[in-house]
Amino acid sequence: MSKQKPSIPKGTRDFGPEQMIKRNYIFSTIKKTFEKFGFLPLETPAMENLEVLTGKYGDEGDKLLFKILNSGDYLKDVDLSKKIDAKEMLPKITEKGLRYDLTVPFARYVVMNQGTLTFPFKRYQIQPVWRADRPQKGRYREFYQCDADVVGTDSLICEAENILMMDEVLANLGIPDFTIKINNRKILSGITEVIGAKGKETAFCVAIDKLDKIGVENVINELVENGFYQASIPKIEPFLNLKGNNKSVLKEISSLLSDSETGQRGIAELEKIIQLLQNFGYAKENVKIDLTLARGLTYYTGAIFEVIAYGTSISSSISGGGRYDDLTGVFGLEGVSGVGFSFGIERIYDIMEELNLFPSENLFSTKVMIVHFDEQSCNLALSVLKKLRDNNISSEIYPDPVKLKKQMSYANKKEIPYVIMIGSQEIETQTYALKNMITGEQQNLTIAQIIKHLSE
Amino acid sequence: MSKQKPSIPKGTRDFGPEQMIKRNYIFSTIKKTFEKFGFLPLETPAMENLEVLTGKYGDEGDKLLFKILNSGDYLKDVDLSKKIDAKEMLPKITEKGLRYDLTVPFARYVVMNQGTLTFPFKRYQIQPVWRADRPQKGRYREFYQCDADVVGTDSLICEAENILMMDEVLANLGIPDFTIKINNRKILSGITEVIGAKGKETAFCVAIDKLDKIGVENVINELVENGFYQASIPKIEPFLNLKGNNKSVLKEISSLLSDSETGQRGIAELEKIIQLLQNFGYAKENVKIDLTLARGLTYYTGAIFEVIAYGTSISSSISGGGRYDDLTGVFGLEGVSGVGFSFGIERIYDIMEELNLFPSENLFSTKVMIVHFDEQSCNLALSVLKKLRDNNISSEIYPDPVKLKKQMSYANKKEIPYVIMIGSQEIETQTYALKNMITGEQQNLTIAQIIKHLSE
Repeated sequence: MSKQKPSIPKGTRDFGPEQMIKRNYIFSTIKKTFEKFGFLPLETPAMENLEVLTGKYGDEGDKLLFKILNSGDYLKDVDLSKKIDAKEMLPKITEKGLRYDLTVPFARYVVMNQGTLTFPFKRYQIQPVWRADRPQKGRYREFYQCDADVVGTDSLICEAENILMMDEVLANLGIPDFTIKINNRKILSGITEVIGAKGKETAFCVAIDKLDKIGVENVINELVENGFYQASIPKIEPFLNLKGNNKSVLKEISSLLSDSETGQRGIAELEKIIQLLQNFGYAKENVKIDLTLARGLTYYTGAIFEVIAYGTSISSSISGGGRYDDLTGVFGLEGVSGVGFSFGIERIYDIMEELNLFPSENLFSTKVMIVHFDEQSCNLALSVLKKLRDNNISSEIYPDPVKLKKQMSYANKKEIPYVIMIGSQEIETQTYALKNMITGEQQNLTIAQIIKHLSE
Repeated sequence: MSKQKPSIPKGTRDFGPEQMIKRNYIFSTIKKTFEKFGFLPLETPAMENLEVLTGKYGDEGDKLLFKILNSGDYLKDVDLSKKIDAKEMLPKITEKGLRYDLTVPFARYVVMNQGTLTFPFKRYQIQPVWRADRPQKGRYREFYQCDADVVGTDSLICEAENILMMDEVLANLGIPDFTIKINNRKILSGITEVIGAKGKETAFCVAIDKLDKIGVENVINELVENGFYQASIPKIEPFLNLKGNNKSVLKEISSLLSDSETGQRGIAELEKIIQLLQNFGYAKENVKIDLTLARGLTYYTGAIFEVIAYGTSISSSISGGGRYDDLTGVFGLEGVSGVGFSFGIERIYDIMEELNLFPSENLFSTKVMIVHFDEQSCNLALSVLKKLRDNNISSEIYPDPVKLKKQMSYANKKEIPYVIMIGSQEIETQTYALKNMITGEQQNLTIAQIIKHLSE
């Protein structure tokens, strides 16, 4: 085998111990809240059949699917006597793809297991997804999603609980400043009705979704390009400019949408969610109705959420979700409404790094390392090690007979907080020097005392 | 979008809540021990560049790699005017594959990060791997591996610690009857020397590895087919038939291999590992030297391990590993010896199911569900729910206004152990009926009392 300079695919990352411990801290904080709210874990395969994935994420999404070459003789179904056409050949050489998100596999799972699941079915799912996007800062080809969804009920209590979960997780992670924006697709539909653009909800949402990025003028240009009548444009602005506290926004939008039944239903849903949050005793004022919130995805039909974090170099969206009335319909199961949301773990990680929010202690797992000086002390060290581990104290020994300095340097680099030194004196007295690597303090203790000290 | 009957790729699985909770129980038991021994977590991408993967698992392994079609115009590097040849076209349409195991990506990681890692570097890794194997009972195309490896030392303390970790995890999981088989590749090399087949170690190991499955006769046939002289065959049998306790096996093999320096080194290593286990105070007698243990992988150079579990319908290998002196060499970093092992989580799961070893309690996360009867009681329920969750009690409410029976049936199916009932009387008295769903017992308690009761 020839020597290679190894590399990893662009847009992918290794997560070394330090990153892993920080990432696991985020994951376990999220899991704890999900489970406290009665959500149960689910995992689906990395690969899905392509017919499950294609047509669910728009043309743009379809292009970003990673496809897996059929194994064995991958050309066996291709007629090589004919002119090869890339598009025509594609379905003959690949039938599986890597999952693009966790929502479509979840809908697929619900449909396949509808006979045995208990509805309302509440599941969370924390797994990587893959997208053949152009890699750039903060955008990866492999990244984790953390989703919680409940399907089989249209109760707005679920929307309120989504908000409570978003808030609890972010508060527990210590994110100092964030707003939970909320809107409703029915209100956006109502707006299209009222401005004379009924039936163009999707184009409207896709354009509005870009408001923060491209500004009002470009949003309007995009709408005109997508067939919105010039006459309807001036009617849009009052909606885009509607600002204020939740109560006043609801009042004004209600009068603007007085002619739209759908719009009124959306408003009633928003009011009810705000009311339910009060019933829950939720007293924070970080939930804000924002009529310009649209979310890009096509399947939302009711409430939509997005969490924006401030206080870092760039404010960024760190969570989002919404209600979908018929996600499972495409797989043949109609009338199963659901609502769910997802945390953007990669951005949350970056914010926590920037604001120094990760706990500084116990990042590494080992509590104590035993330092040894010769074969005799090494042998004794092994029996001490066993006792420590039997008492659930994470501990290790430098495996080679090297100088003290090298052993201490290993302990320092691994940020091991305690070191036990075993030399000839220790063997005689059966007490051992326990050194606190942070304070430099050193005590002579028996094993039992060391175990007690380190267990505290 | 047309209606589809959804399915998942053959050889892959969904893990629903019940399986997930059981699998997580196994994973967390394994992690706990790994971390107690000072191993730190690592994750590598699902995709690796194909040149990292190919040539590492033998021809058979190369065929089983899942390859990812290049994104965008995947045929852009193919000369369509020439006759298409599957083998020739392959490297032009795919450059990435799904990881086949965790060891090669680990070696790749170590080489890429050699400048910043602290050696000896101890990492564990729990991630899925993918193999385009023919799916059959117990063999999947996507399955998890749980590996622990230490690289950058050739100390036999690491071998002893591997054995301690294997034993601790399996004991903690409650696996009742297992043997940790141990051998050494240097002994197997010594045997090939002594029987006059020096240089044919790999063929010898591959054949011996199948002894349990195909029997002595077929192993010998395979050796002859692979160019072993007929004359050497009778010399093999004494080795294959060497049985007894560790001490007597070591004594006999030492005399049989008196002419092989390599063999003697292997014997000395085995003796030292047994000695180190004693120094650790390891008193169990489940570590057995087995000279017919060979392990299939080519990269092992020293100690090799395999754990066999008994007491179920079929005894099965549930863990294995060994010492490799130059795994990173192929990526350009020479002289980094390592040793590690892996748990076969799928088989461990099956054994635990068959022997009913999973803890029966708290399989599901929700501790208590609130039952409500009308809008007023539902509103009160939400404030109770908040108090429960603020006290870290996992709890939920049936989100829809349905009959008591349906709410209770949901709690039963989800195996929720407690139910709180809130009716008009409860609203008046501010005490609530707490029902134990297992015993049927019911008490009237205040919220504070309920929180105390459920926190115990």
